Formats: sequence, C-alpha cells, structure tokens
Amino acid sequence: MKQSELFTKTLREAPKDERSISVQLLIRAGFVDKLAAGVYTFLPLGFRVLEKIQNIISQEIENIGGKRILMPVLVPKTNWQQTGRWKSFKELFKIKGKSDQEYGLGPTHEEVIAPLIQKYVSSYKDLPCYVYQIQTKFRDEIRVKSGILRTREFDMKDLYSFHRDENDLDRYYEKARKAYFNIFKRMGLKNKTYLTLASGGSFSKFSHEFQTITLAGEDIIHICQNCGLAINQEIKKDYPECPECHKKGFKKEKAIEIGNIFKLKTKYTKPFDFEFIDKDGSKKLVIMGCYGIGLTRLMGTIAEVHNDKNGIIWPKKVAPFNTHLIQIGNNNKVKQQAEKLYKDLRKQEVEVLYDDREDKSPGEKFADADLIGIPIRIVISERTFKRDCVELKKRNEKKIKLVKIKYLSQFLSSELKTQNAKP
Amino acid sequence: MKQSELFTKTLREAPKDERSISVQLLIRAGFVDKLAAGVYTFLPLGFRVLEKIQNIISQEIENIGGKRILMPVLVPKTNWQQTGRWKSFKELFKIKGKSDQEYGLGPTHEEVIAPLIQKYVSSYKDLPCYVYQIQTKFRDEIRVKSGILRTREFDMKDLYSFHRDENDLDRYYEKARKAYFNIFKRMGLKNKTYLTLASGGSFSKFSHEFQTITLAGEDIIHICQNCGLAINQEIKKDYPECPECHKKGFKKEKAIEIGNIFKLKTKYTKPFDFEFIDKDGSKKLVIMGCYGIGLTRLMGTIAEVHNDKNGIIWPKKVAPFNTHLIQIGNNNKVKQQAEKLYKDLRKQEVEVLYDDREDKSPGEKFADADLIGIPIRIVISERTFKRDCVELKKRNEKKIKLVKIKYLSQFLSSELKTQNAKP
Repeated sequence: MKQSELFTKTLREAPKDERSISVQLLIRAGFVDKLAAGVYTFLPLGFRVLEKIQNIISQEIENIGGKRILMPVLVPKTNWQQTGRWKSFKELFKIKGKSDQEYGLGPTHEEVIAPLIQKYVSSYKDLPCYVYQIQTKFRDEIRVKSGILRTREFDMKDLYSFHRDENDLDRYYEKARKAYFNIFKRMGLKNKTYLTLASGGSFSKFSHEFQTITLAGEDIIHICQNCGLAINQEIKKDYPECPECHKKGFKKEKAIEIGNIFKLKTKYTKPFDFEFIDKDGSKKLVIMGCYGIGLTRLMGTIAEVHNDKNGIIWPKKVAPFNTHLIQIGNNNKVKQQAEKLYKDLRKQEVEVLYDDREDKSPGEKFADADLIGIPIRIVISERTFKRDCVELKKRNEKKIKLVKIKYLSQFLSSELKTQNAKP
Repeated sequence: MKQSELFTKTLREAPKDERSISVQLLIRAGFVDKLAAGVYTFLPLGFRVLEKIQNIISQEIENIGGKRILMPVLVPKTNWQQTGRWKSFKELFKIKGKSDQEYGLGPTHEEVIAPLIQKYVSSYKDLPCYVYQIQTKFRDEIRVKSGILRTREFDMKDLYSFHRDENDLDRYYEKARKAYFNIFKRMGLKNKTYLTLASGGSFSKFSHEFQTITLAGEDIIHICQNCGLAINQEIKKDYPECPECHKKGFKKEKAIEIGNIFKLKTKYTKPFDFEFIDKDGSKKLVIMGCYGIGLTRLMGTIAEVHNDKNGIIWPKKVAPFNTHLIQIGNNNKVKQQAEKLYKDLRKQEVEVLYDDREDKSPGEKFADADLIGIPIRIVISERTFKRDCVELKKRNEKKIKLVKIKYLSQFLSSELKTQNAKP
C-alpha cells in the first residue's frame, strides 16, 4: 500500500482521555479511532492487524477440529431466560424492537449454540463436535478506561465443544490449552503469558485463564516460582501452596486476561434438556466446554507489551505489513527505483507499506515508521541509490545494514520464511 | 472437510414458516439456521459461501482503491442527531446503556465515516479518499418474511468516497458501477441483474440500484427492451420513455435489490461542517458518494436464482467447496482409495467435501449432494475402483463421465483454473 493513499495520518500528541500506553500509540499511529467511550473504529492499519490475529486463531482452532460458523448478535430474550441469564448477566445490553421482540446483544453465545447443536445431535455417534465463531460481542460496562483492552464492543473467538462424557471433555480441553499457547506464541506473547487458575463457578472446581503480564492489566495473579502455574488473586486464599507442584514461592504481578477455557459440563445443556442416547441406550446430558479469546483485546495487549518510547514494535506475524519501504528525497531516479522495488516486492508477495509521500522530511518519515512499528524498514535515498543498495533496519534492533538491491529478495525471503513458518 | 465431521444434517422437510425457496433450500441443506424472525445463524457450509462472497467483494473494491476499515455497531445518539436521522430513520434499533449513553445499532455508517474522515482531510491534497468495511448491520423491520433476503441483522459491504468536486465523484461513481458488475458476474448473477434508476431523494436526481430478477423480490422494475436500463416502479411515472435511449418498450419484472450506489454529495458532510481548503484557498464542503452491497442477501439471491427441484446449484466461485467426493459402500479398498484421493486433492489445493459417512445409502448421499449443490461431484465405488476410475458429474449437467484417476487432477485443474481466474 502506498502511504500517500492511506488516509490516516500520525498524530504528535496522545489523546488526553486515554490512559493505557497501547491505545495512545494505536491512536497516534493511526490503527484505531475512538468513536465513544469503549467504542472504537479499526482503521486500515488496525484492520490488517486484526485480520492477521484472526487468521492465526482460525488456523489453530481448525487444527483441533473447530468448524467455523457465525451466530447472530441479536439473541432473543427467551434464550437468555431459559438459563436465567436475562436477569443474572449484569453486563447484558438489552434492546426491544418495534414488534416487541426483546433481545440481548450477545456477549457470549452458550444460549444459541446449545439449542443449535441440539437440533443435530441425538446419538453418541454424533459426538464429539467442535464449533467456533469470530464475532462482534457486547458488554454494557459501566466504566471503560483502558482503551481497547476493555470495551463495550469487541471481537471475540468463541469455541464450544460437546462430548459424551467428562473424560472426552478433559482430553479436548488439554488440546485446546496447547492450541492457545501456539496462538500466543505466534503473536509474540508466550513469554509473558501464564496459565492461571481461576474460579470455576458452581459447576467446576476451577477454570483456566491465560494472563499476560502488563501494568495495564486489571487482574492480579500469583505465579509459582517453581513450575510457572499462576493463580488468580480472586481464589489465591484457597491455595497456600501451588496445587500443581506443591511449592510455596509465588510472585505477584498485574496481568490482563487474553483468553479463558472453561469446563461448562452440563451448565448450559441442562436448561435446554440437551440429551443424547448413549451406546447402552440410556439418555444422558451432553457435556460441554467453552474456550474464548478476545481479538481486539489481544491487539491492545500486543501493543502494550511490545513498544518503546518511539512507538509500537509489532511481532512479525501480526504486523500490518512485513516491510516499510521509505523513499528519501524526490530525486527522479530514486523515485523510479523505489517504485520498481515496491512492485517487485509485491510480486514476490512481500507485504509493503511504501512511504512515497513527497511533502515529508526524512526525519518525519523515520519517526512515523518507528511509531507504526513495521518489523523491517527499507530505505532508498540518493546515497544508497549510487551504490545500488538499500539501507535495512529491523524495528527491534539498532544496527543499520547496507544491502545490495540484487540480494534484497534473498535476504527478505529468509526473514519471511521464519515469519510464515508454523510453530 | 469430512462430511462425518460436519455436525449439520440435511433435512427432508422445509420449515413451514419460511416462504422463500432460497431459505427453504439453505435450511434443508444445512447452510443456515433460523434463530428468530429475521435473525439467522450461518452454519459451516453457509459461512464458507459468505467468505467467498466477501473475498470477491473485497478484491473488486480494493481494485478501485478502497481501503478496508471496521466501524462499530454501537453508534452514539449524538452522531445520529447531527443529521436528523435519530428521528427520521424509522428502522433504527435504539439502545440505552447502563451509564445512560444511547446508541443506534448501525444500519449504515455515514454518521461515523464523515466525522472520521474529517479528522484526516483538510486540504484538496488529501482527496479523493475511498474507505469501505464489511460489517454486521441492523434494521428494526416490522415484518420479515423472505428468509435471508430481508432480515433484522445482516452483513453489508459499505464503501464511501470523498471528493473535491462533483466531476471527481462522477468519475469514481462510474468506476464503482463497473466494479459492481464484475462482482455480480463472478457470482453468477450478471445475466439477471439490471442497473436500475431509483429515487435520489432531495439531493440528487436519482440513485442507482442493482436489481436481480426473481419472483421472491419485493421490488418491481421496468426494463427498457432496447438498452437494458431498468427503472424502479417507484419513479416509473416520471419516465414515459427510457431516459437513456429514449425508446418506449419496457418489460415489468419482480426483482430484488442486491446493491445500490448513491451520489450523496454534501448531504452528510454539511451537518458535520466537513470542509477542505481547495487549491485556490477557498473553503468547500467535501463531496461524498456511498456504495452498498448486502452479503447475506446476495447469498440468498444466488440460491433463489440457481436451483432446481433437487436443491441448490452454486455458481463455481461462491460454492462452499469446489468438489464433492462421494464414497459408495464401505469396501476397505474403496475406502482407502477415497481417503487417498481426498488427501491428494487437498494437497493440490482443491477444496473437497468428502462424504465418508458409513451409515448412508448411495441414494441418500446423491440426494444430499444435489441438495447441497457443489459444482463437481466425484464418485468412487467398487465398480469405478475396479477400472481405476472415478465417476464425474457436474451439478448443472446430466451427463456422467468415467475418468481415470491418473487424469483426474489434470481435469480438475483445467476446471478450477476457469474458476479462480479473475474476469
């Protein structure tokens, strides 16, 4: 994409009402725009990051058998009433249509997926079954103050699994846990993300959260210094020692929940009488699990964890573009060479943001590049042109390399191979 | 995908409360499920069709310079008040949050995009600018009776263009018109779709709709029998002769509006005082155009137009899979060969739905294949196995061909080349 065609511009100042670093940088760099408290627009750069996050999540969830669907935002009141959540779900946005139908705007979809799968599952032969969606969700939060880390409208991946018995749920739950760590690894969050015990509500001993350490987080977790399991502060009183390795040393950290997995068991199948006929002819309630990841929150968390004083430092696999090609000066020959390189790179399927703006100084262009945070910066100037070179710099390194243009594609393909390889 | 892993099942009976043929077939074949009046879930097969439609639309819109963003569903009351649509937009779903903020659930996004682009555009040098999104939209319709052709929640692509003057808008409008016909051509709708003059409201002589002839349509159009331009019945009284070729012969047809393009001019820039400084230093209002396509409605329209008594006949480029591989009988050798073929085809990046179900008769499998409507059916049975062949049949043809397995990939690649080629 040519930067001259990108309608967004970087902003010098962070908006005063935004407190989290991630959203300050994301707004200044032109990834998101705030429409109202807790409600954001994703601009071209931000939308590209969301797409990358989405693709990684879909791939990993389909690897563990998830089949993708799309459930509605408008979930009828009657569905919520069947589980009691019309009253008990405090953050449910409620709406009444002209024909007196009432709906809750889905913050989660157990009340839709359980009766949906019930239509197709009657025998043990129809189980297990794994279904997911990536959908806009809504929560009527009273206070929103952390940019895109906690919003009233957000994108979520929610996966639901259906099983004959708890053993089968346990097996799949373990697979999902691994898939989650693959996802966070590919996004550059694995080192700071901890599997965390949290409350399981009335129907399960506990659930698991995936918590990423950051000062912007609203949760507090206690990390076992021996085995690395974390415990959410909310239930820490119940665990004087680590339930996994039985050691006692913990480190307290602020963290943000970027995902959770939950053994729902029969919590949502019972209200719908969702039963199946087992091999022995007996009727049993279907056993259910659910697995959530917030995409827009992930984007914020990545920006929160990966930045320096100059801007964002996107991990390769979620960066809006692979490379940022910067043309310095408007010398005709330099311009032609930059244009040619832009075309060549795109032919090689290298994603390029090409800074072809004629009215910006080199200093402004470099500052914008640092703020936007694309992993590889390629500079063409009169000086490099004379030597048939470009200047290469990685966003997360200081050193600048001169590379002959004829070797550039080789250099990038080895860089990008690492990038596109699956873990 | 293995059909045994697809949780949906085909249904023998059409639901009694659904009147349009498309939604009857889509529900019976397992593409969509009705959650409430005008509110549908897209199941795995349906979601795949939506994705194909989405990809075609994005490609064509990006070809004419569109930059993709994502605007919120929750649009604050204040934005709607600025244009007067909080009161005048009859189908706006209104919602009030706990902290007394009020929102309208976006049925269209002029009230968001105009002030958003205003933040970045100040000079003629910043224009033109083209921005689009694909987003879930909402309309509080009183009656919904046409399946996914008219719903309360639906997916739409909306593109907005911003210009210095009307000439520039006219030029882009023409480009968009062509892009729309490319889109409808790739989806197999071009032959039945007519550019149709419709009312332009108070600020433009007329707008253009893209109307597809079908008995399920809610509009009536008059098609000029000489030049093919159509006129919406709503304004036909103003045109005793064709405004394009000045001939008088018209044919009346029922049709459904699958897209529209509109010269908004200053209708939505004026309420926001969205001005720019022109070359001569004068301040002028930005000129605006908007261009919509309903994705879920398109899916319904395609199914409405392309079907026979046995089921849907998906045009190649929007079919959920390229091929439907059907294994007849559970003979071990046949099964192994089918499994191998399934793997080989996927390696060649041919999309396959593989009917590996062991408890279905050949008759049931063929009936399901016809209902689902994938373009190419490949059958492996004991009979074909003995001859190292498969049986090939296209959904829209009667003849069945025996093809040696070793030539299959060659046959498919020539079929699919046509399929993936851009128009």
